[in-house]
Amino acid sequence: MAAHPIDYRYGSLEMREVWEEERRLGYYLKVEAALTNALARMGKIPKEAASEISLKADSKTVTLSRVREIEAETRHDVMAMVKALTEQCGDAGKFVHLTATSYDIVDTAQALQLGESLSLISQKSRKLLKTLLALSEKHKNLVMAGRTHGQHALPITLGFKFANYADKLGQDIANAEWDRDNLVVGKFSGAVGTYSAQKLLGISGTKLEGAVMAELGLKPASISTQVVGREGVARIVSDVAILASTLEQIAAEIRNLQRTEIAEVGEPFGKSQVGSSTMAQKRNPVDCENVCGNARVVRGCVAPALENIALEHERDLTNSAAERSILPTVFLLTDEMLERMERVLSGLAVFPERMERNLQLTHGAIMAEAVITELVKKGMGRQEAHEIMRLASHEAMAKETPLKDVLLSNAKVKAKFSSREIDALLDYRSYTGAAGEKVGEIAGKWNEFLKRGE
Amino acid sequence: MAAHPIDYRYGSLEMREVWEEERRLGYYLKVEAALTNALARMGKIPKEAASEISLKADSKTVTLSRVREIEAETRHDVMAMVKALTEQCGDAGKFVHLTATSYDIVDTAQALQLGESLSLISQKSRKLLKTLLALSEKHKNLVMAGRTHGQHALPITLGFKFANYADKLGQDIANAEWDRDNLVVGKFSGAVGTYSAQKLLGISGTKLEGAVMAELGLKPASISTQVVGREGVARIVSDVAILASTLEQIAAEIRNLQRTEIAEVGEPFGKSQVGSSTMAQKRNPVDCENVCGNARVVRGCVAPALENIALEHERDLTNSAAERSILPTVFLLTDEMLERMERVLSGLAVFPERMERNLQLTHGAIMAEAVITELVKKGMGRQEAHEIMRLASHEAMAKETPLKDVLLSNAKVKAKFSSREIDALLDYRSYTGAAGEKVGEIAGKWNEFLKRGE
Amino acid sequence: MAAHPIDYRYGSLEMREVWEEERRLGYYLKVEAALTNALARMGKIPKEAASEISLKADSKTVTLSRVREIEAETRHDVMAMVKALTEQCGDAGKFVHLTATSYDIVDTAQALQLGESLSLISQKSRKLLKTLLALSEKHKNLVMAGRTHGQHALPITLGFKFANYADKLGQDIANAEWDRDNLVVGKFSGAVGTYSAQKLLGISGTKLEGAVMAELGLKPASISTQVVGREGVARIVSDVAILASTLEQIAAEIRNLQRTEIAEVGEPFGKSQVGSSTMAQKRNPVDCENVCGNARVVRGCVAPALENIALEHERDLTNSAAERSILPTVFLLTDEMLERMERVLSGLAVFPERMERNLQLTHGAIMAEAVITELVKKGMGRQEAHEIMRLASHEAMAKETPLKDVLLSNAKVKAKFSSREIDALLDYRSYTGAAGEKVGEIAGKWNEFLKRGE
Amino acid sequence: MAAHPIDYRYGSLEMREVWEEERRLGYYLKVEAALTNALARMGKIPKEAASEISLKADSKTVTLSRVREIEAETRHDVMAMVKALTEQCGDAGKFVHLTATSYDIVDTAQALQLGESLSLISQKSRKLLKTLLALSEKHKNLVMAGRTHGQHALPITLGFKFANYADKLGQDIANAEWDRDNLVVGKFSGAVGTYSAQKLLGISGTKLEGAVMAELGLKPASISTQVVGREGVARIVSDVAILASTLEQIAAEIRNLQRTEIAEVGEPFGKSQVGSSTMAQKRNPVDCENVCGNARVVRGCVAPALENIALEHERDLTNSAAERSILPTVFLLTDEMLERMERVLSGLAVFPERMERNLQLTHGAIMAEAVITELVKKGMGRQEAHEIMRLASHEAMAKETPLKDVLLSNAKVKAKFSSREIDALLDYRSYTGAAGEKVGEIAGKWNEFLKRGE
Repeated sequence: MAAHPIDYRYGSLEMREVWEEERRLGYYLKVEAALTNALARMGKIPKEAASEISLKADSKTVTLSRVREIEAETRHDVMAMVKALTEQCGDAGKFVHLTATSYDIVDTAQALQLGESLSLISQKSRKLLKTLLALSEKHKNLVMAGRTHGQHALPITLGFKFANYADKLGQDIANAEWDRDNLVVGKFSGAVGTYSAQKLLGISGTKLEGAVMAELGLKPASISTQVVGREGVARIVSDVAILASTLEQIAAEIRNLQRTEIAEVGEPFGKSQVGSSTMAQKRNPVDCENVCGNARVVRGCVAPALENIALEHERDLTNSAAERSILPTVFLLTDEMLERMERVLSGLAVFPERMERNLQLTHGAIMAEAVITELVKKGMGRQEAHEIMRLASHEAMAKETPLKDVLLSNAKVKAKFSSREIDALLDYRSYTGAAGEKVGEIAGKWNEFLKRGE
Repeated sequence: MAAHPIDYRYGSLEMREVWEEERRLGYYLKVEAALTNALARMGKIPKEAASEISLKADSKTVTLSRVREIEAETRHDVMAMVKALTEQCGDAGKFVHLTATSYDIVDTAQALQLGESLSLISQKSRKLLKTLLALSEKHKNLVMAGRTHGQHALPITLGFKFANYADKLGQDIANAEWDRDNLVVGKFSGAVGTYSAQKLLGISGTKLEGAVMAELGLKPASISTQVVGREGVARIVSDVAILASTLEQIAAEIRNLQRTEIAEVGEPFGKSQVGSSTMAQKRNPVDCENVCGNARVVRGCVAPALENIALEHERDLTNSAAERSILPTVFLLTDEMLERMERVLSGLAVFPERMERNLQLTHGAIMAEAVITELVKKGMGRQEAHEIMRLASHEAMAKETPLKDVLLSNAKVKAKFSSREIDALLDYRSYTGAAGEKVGEIAGKWNEFLKRGE
Repeated sequence: MAAHPIDYRYGSLEMREVWEEERRLGYYLKVEAALTNALARMGKIPKEAASEISLKADSKTVTLSRVREIEAETRHDVMAMVKALTEQCGDAGKFVHLTATSYDIVDTAQALQLGESLSLISQKSRKLLKTLLALSEKHKNLVMAGRTHGQHALPITLGFKFANYADKLGQDIANAEWDRDNLVVGKFSGAVGTYSAQKLLGISGTKLEGAVMAELGLKPASISTQVVGREGVARIVSDVAILASTLEQIAAEIRNLQRTEIAEVGEPFGKSQVGSSTMAQKRNPVDCENVCGNARVVRGCVAPALENIALEHERDLTNSAAERSILPTVFLLTDEMLERMERVLSGLAVFPERMERNLQLTHGAIMAEAVITELVKKGMGRQEAHEIMRLASHEAMAKETPLKDVLLSNAKVKAKFSSREIDALLDYRSYTGAAGEKVGEIAGKWNEFLKRGE
Repeated sequence: MAAHPIDYRYGSLEMREVWEEERRLGYYLKVEAALTNALARMGKIPKEAASEISLKADSKTVTLSRVREIEAETRHDVMAMVKALTEQCGDAGKFVHLTATSYDIVDTAQALQLGESLSLISQKSRKLLKTLLALSEKHKNLVMAGRTHGQHALPITLGFKFANYADKLGQDIANAEWDRDNLVVGKFSGAVGTYSAQKLLGISGTKLEGAVMAELGLKPASISTQVVGREGVARIVSDVAILASTLEQIAAEIRNLQRTEIAEVGEPFGKSQVGSSTMAQKRNPVDCENVCGNARVVRGCVAPALENIALEHERDLTNSAAERSILPTVFLLTDEMLERMERVLSGLAVFPERMERNLQLTHGAIMAEAVITELVKKGMGRQEAHEIMRLASHEAMAKETPLKDVLLSNAKVKAKFSSREIDALLDYRSYTGAAGEKVGEIAGKWNEFLKRGE
């Protein structure tokens, strides 16, 4: 039975596997195998020994329960794994872990985990980006109220709104992929980073390190101590937290647009889904609320990742416990958020008639900017036009009267416009500016990006 | 297999049980039972129905797997539990959850979890406080270097150092217990906090709420919406994070005092314990490092707890996902930290001869304050005395010469003191001021507190 | 010219004064004066010297510019102040700072700042609490939609909403006042907390400390090192951050209720106030948005306050720089938030007709719970009633048809209720449960609290 | 008088100027001027009007005090600036702010501030990188104890230590410069990002935006709403916080190496500098402690920056207040940290004889790895060799006996090595592996980088 929701409720199976305890042991063993293979290729240990070790370096053979047994005595998890592997390998056992220090194994294994996690994040984010771009193009011309400060501002289109989100998400993905390709590094530089044991064995430490990393598909750190510097992990966590915050923004937006009073979009809602155990009418945006809640937890992991950077001397152990908690939390919760947003956006209900109705809520005042601009074009000073429209808009909204009528009762305005011209000016459908072009630009940019990644 | 260390590595069994998924279901059912019992006592439902529901309200009967099955369809975890309980209760089933809203159950169940967790924290902290007080009294007179800015400052005693920690820990415990007794509250006020359904049923909502809470040993919130205000949870998390930071301070201190160059204390170290897979000489303060690492994660949970406060209207769901992660994390990691500090402090190795040797490292300069004070007593101005001693101390340390010799070569000082008086002045053993009295005061204060709590 | 908004934009004059540089110097000098007065009373230095020092211990005489001049050379701000004071005091100068260590001065001076700041916070929060209670009582019966998950849930009253906020704010104030009375402590225990210099001078260190604190109206720490333990500061910062989060919740609520589509309340808006430089119609809830933004910054100060706890040995200096930034930030921004919320709430526009109109938006479905409850009372099973109402409510909302009509077309419901009974059941005005009583309870509780504090 | 230390104590003059209130007004005016120039070039307003506005768009002419006066009435800072500029421009005034929304001005002005700040950070970090590389090369062969877990591990060189820091700092700089070149973007897309007003005026919005940005040396956002998405600001803040954490690591290292018991390096210390007002012998690493304290505050600003991302709809105002506080705080404190680290590192005292003495503290056990490796080379199993050396090292350290003697008393070891071979094996000077080569590699890499940036 599990206590943390990433173990019983949040995150996909494939992401959980990357971070599970037994899999972690598997990564350790994989790194030990890569080490002996590299040593064998360099002629430092017999090929047969390396084969034997590789054969046994598997969490089926070297079991978690045996490792735990040894760790209970030695209180050192990597040393326990080394012993458990050694005892499986007969004579070859004496070549296990040769020249390595624990963190050569741990940091390199963690690099494998980080790389796989970032790839999963990238893959699911790319899928979500496609969904967003499709929504953006589909609703490119669907006019709705743009809102600032929670107030109707000017018309936009739903597609334009999604284009903004797509652009953010695209950039987040580009960052995550850059991080995967540049910050996910392993190390095999020994106990304080000087490759001294290797040198004593007559091995080029950097060559050996390169060989191990090549087998594992990783880059080596340009320099390290006992550990890889933690700046990279901090940046990865922070970039994933930024991605999570972008998802939060989209989720929060849907929650707001789904409000009873706005009702312009809605989360997909199952036929048998229950909104409330007592208020039978409820259709709650529960996936989006979940995303917003989980974003907080992901963000909360950035502070420990930053605190982990200032390790003492050639390392202390404090990053270890902290990373054990925050890395699976960050990746599994973000994975959950991506899955939920995919479900929400790919099944999103859109209510154009409510958008239309809401656009009329200000009785025309949402078009104040257009009238000001036209007044200025006709020679009025900008400040004067602004003041006229400020008063007229407030009057229309307060009295719930069409802005057109208020304007027609204003001599200065009436002197400039015919009734028909005012109708045209107040037509919100025609006032979405470059929204459509922007949708096209963004679609072009990110669809190309998506192709490149395939 | 588990991905989060609180599910496979950190935290005691008893604390994990409080937060495990199945136990959570058990708490929900316990609250449902308390509700029907209260309704029966108030004559609103048949006694037999309440008995039947109480009998079935158990996670053995209403199984997690059945609840999950229903939740997959309804996508509402509490409603799924209600249905699963209802289907077990035959005719009595229709009285299940009567007048309740989901969060009446969830928040009240969580109050039970918070209360039990805080009690465990209190219990283990009290044990640790006893250990600290015992260490403080045992080493009341063991003189060692006091250090500020990492530099030798003035002599203190080891007991005095521990007395400071004991006082902090004592206050942390008092806070945690106050929180448990005052901030852990349930609610049964219905869907928006107005007790409307109860009123319609002719029940006094506040009376029913009081009855349910009394059965569960909880206080009701003084007022609530659909949920209890999140300020209380935030304060609990923050107070536990402060406790975790106190533990971090003690752990960091031991790590520093265990440095190769200081070596005044040491973590207990098993006969077969391995410090490093390659550097066989290592004895690393791994428990204390672990405590420091976990403190970061606990602190990282404060931000989400604070963000949870500003829920929208009569509630939104965002606190739910966030609390699912942060509450077990905070309590299980702090539990782990307490256990480790208990192990470390109750088996702490103390090396008095190293303390003595270290006291001599500054060649007497650690006693500069005493000389200044005595010079002032003999009529010298404070600033002049300070300047003389600043130069003399630096000379003694730079040349690795006894400060006494430097002082004797200074006419102004020599004019005031005999060689013997200087010896007396530089005797660090006699310069621990009120350290001993303070140890006594602190011991008195907190031993009494410990007695009161028993 | 200033770069940080607490120096040019946010926070009241009275709060800024507490934290200004020159005032800080004034606090230092006040503590030095209290020290010499205590020493004189204890017969350790001449009364005349103490009088002379007290006379000069003022930032008018010992100027900031002189102190800075000396600090440029000594690189030690307290020592610079001591020298600057000494040079003003003639012969009495040699008694300045006697037995003290820098942090005796700094921590005690900071306690004075913390105490004054918390008192200001308490005072302004109490004023705001009065405003909230008045609003709560005034709108005790003003029915509006209660909302959960952003969706209409059940009716509440505006007064009930405010009663919830009042209860939270009241508790926050009680916490802040407890902190002021218990956690704001000074110290005069010397360089490592052992009162050694005092002892050498034949003075009882704890008696001297008590005398200094008594003159300053402070409590002494029960034990200290060179510094007071930082747990207290962390708890104060965290409690103020909780208060800030309560204010954020109220502000966020007003922002939401002021949305164009909801429009049930509004921030006061000046006749000449401009909402937007281009959209003349805008009336933005700028004060509330400001409060929400500043809450983030205040919360961001909790992490450094927690990190400050684990100081090394008898202290390191890291807390110093961090507190210089976070304490004025926390107090000045919270002060600003309190002032803005006072302005907003005391001038809040309330639009009852919009509340009424919004209550009708769900065509009756907001009353689903009442119908379910009544069906259960008439013998229907809870789950069946819930399912009937789930479908009926969704139909009413989807088709924009009165729920009454949908219910009347349902045989099972029709069998239980007459048309008139349904009307009564769907009357939201009559379904606010114990909202009114709760308003009264909360008013009683906190009005009494307010009286006690006067 | 100022309350926040960035206004009276921390940060350079040149960085403070970027963030000062009057300078901010200057940036606003600069953007307004760029707008009118672009409009004039596109033939939309008279060239003379643009010249007139450019001439007056200066904080000497449009004064802060006048803007504040207007803001007191309008409660809108940008609109106040627009009015104040308009009233200075006579007839040309009517073209001020044409087509712009407030945040076109604010976000673009802030981009200028961010760009200048990042350039200052880059410039000072590059200087510090040079200093680190010089130290690294100078001390390339200076052998000292490498430490893990606070315990002696294996020898390294001081130059190797600095090479690690240089590599981290280099990467931090590369990130900051990437951010400056890619994330610092302005916008001129109007009130909701659709360029609608421009379109109505017959102007291509994106062309106008491009022209304004070109004049200001900025890139436009690829798409925006009323504001630029906050992901970029969050990443900048987070990257600067990572840089600050790297600086913290270096500072914490120096604090540790300067401990009385280690004393291998020391902060530069002025002839007249005072370490303590009472302990005259003190030489405290105050600059490094300050850096560590300020790092906490910088890190504390990441959380608000992340929370700012999820703005509502086409924007809400919450980011505004938060950024006003966190951006100057982050940049001025990091600036201070860079200046202090430069002072410390360029004047760092290094004590080779203490390094030598400390290397002997473990009586040879620091070389355990070398002996193990050699035993393995001679055919012993790795686990057996490790166990022999574990026991031998602990014996040497516990008894304070040379490890050589312990080894010679061990039959298995003695059988493999002569006394001379043991001497050679235990010679820590010869066991620094590839430390020297790594120093060279890192120097090569980053010196080239430094050249490229010039």
